[in-house]
Amino acid sequence: MELKVYVDRLSQPSRAIVIFCKVNKIDFEEVGIELLKGQHLTPEFKEINPMGKVPAIVVDGKFKLFESHAILIFLASAFPGVADHWYPADLYRRAEIHSILDWHHSNLRRGSVEFIQNTLLAPFFGRPLNPQAAAEGEKVLSSSLSKIEALWLKESGQFLLGSSQPSIADLCLVCEIMQLEFTDETDRNRILGPHKKIQKWIEDTKNATKPHFDEVHQALFAAKVKLQMQRK
Amino acid sequence: MELKVYVDRLSQPSRAIVIFCKVNKIDFEEVGIELLKGQHLTPEFKEINPMGKVPAIVVDGKFKLFESHAILIFLASAFPGVADHWYPADLYRRAEIHSILDWHHSNLRRGSVEFIQNTLLAPFFGRPLNPQAAAEGEKVLSSSLSKIEALWLKESGQFLLGSSQPSIADLCLVCEIMQLEFTDETDRNRILGPHKKIQKWIEDTKNATKPHFDEVHQALFAAKVKLQMQRK
Repeated sequence: MELKVYVDRLSQPSRAIVIFCKVNKIDFEEVGIELLKGQHLTPEFKEINPMGKVPAIVVDGKFKLFESHAILIFLASAFPGVADHWYPADLYRRAEIHSILDWHHSNLRRGSVEFIQNTLLAPFFGRPLNPQAAAEGEKVLSSSLSKIEALWLKESGQFLLGSSQPSIADLCLVCEIMQLEFTDETDRNRILGPHKKIQKWIEDTKNATKPHFDEVHQALFAAKVKLQMQRK
Repeated sequence: MELKVYVDRLSQPSRAIVIFCKVNKIDFEEVGIELLKGQHLTPEFKEINPMGKVPAIVVDGKFKLFESHAILIFLASAFPGVADHWYPADLYRRAEIHSILDWHHSNLRRGSVEFIQNTLLAPFFGRPLNPQAAAEGEKVLSSSLSKIEALWLKESGQFLLGSSQPSIADLCLVCEIMQLEFTDETDRNRILGPHKKIQKWIEDTKNATKPHFDEVHQALFAAKVKLQMQRK
């Protein structure tokens, strides 16, 4: 199977897919689509993903797929070498992972995107920062972190649903939270500080996917320095 | 398998699940949770779904699941009598359905909820109507309808992805659009009028799931009359 992966490592779902492929030794070609240069909006890229968003994949030159959760489920199902814990065959376990991933869209992800866009990124896409929207985003984000801790991070296991090994849901949600690395340290400490279980879970996910997790996140740290210099 | 389904038929994802069970002859007990009476926020219901949202299911008195897409995938997989077209076993087909369902969260659903909340429902939940948010919701909604027509409703088949029979994605998205029945006729005609393929698709989905589709939507029509009288 020939796999092309269209990503920008500054995008959290893009990173989840690159890390997943590397950890699972899936052979792929990474095609960089730079969001800050508007490369996702070109007619060429819209041939790949008409929604103009990363990540997207093309399989064997003809099957095109977008939406990161759908991509991860496809990769975990189509590549035989992927261990069961990433996307369990058991229907009940699988259902719980789907439920977390669905919840992610309108909660953790919504909060994180709204907060980061409106405290930092909006001007790079030609929009003004909006402090009220940022405050609302932070509220959704903090409430989402509390819910993850209360419902899915149990005493018994290191990962979501009390598992001893990560699933695609761990990878998606942790990559989302890592997007906070973009923000000021004060903001990040205020938001993540109260959530000790979340902090441990991030470390456990890094460790379970090393060295790829840190390597793929290097782009985020480098971009952060660059963006901060541009703001000064 | 003993199935309890916690729903309010005024909620679009609740209706999708009730229709799905009825069409597929899945034996279930429907437990009404009235959103307008705040029954989703009681401690008793939060034992079923700690997020305080409908729909939710309980299987065999112990397995609890929320998020409508996850529930539909579980039901289609766990009940042997469900025809393949609802949730195809083919990995590629299944991936495309996941992609549409993921897209739904931040696009069609976001637009529809924002529009209907801010033109009608917000005061019933103690919040003011917000015309600016309604206008933004309508923009997202209309753009989503255009994308569904351009990308997924093809000439060759009646349903999404050019299929001749509906999938869980058809049911979810059509139930979402039906929520516009809550709004004034002028609003609905303005929004749906330009989208002839969408209108045909709604009719085709109704026909493929009759008489259950209309029966389950009766609650929506009845509530609409009641809400309109309360506003006068």
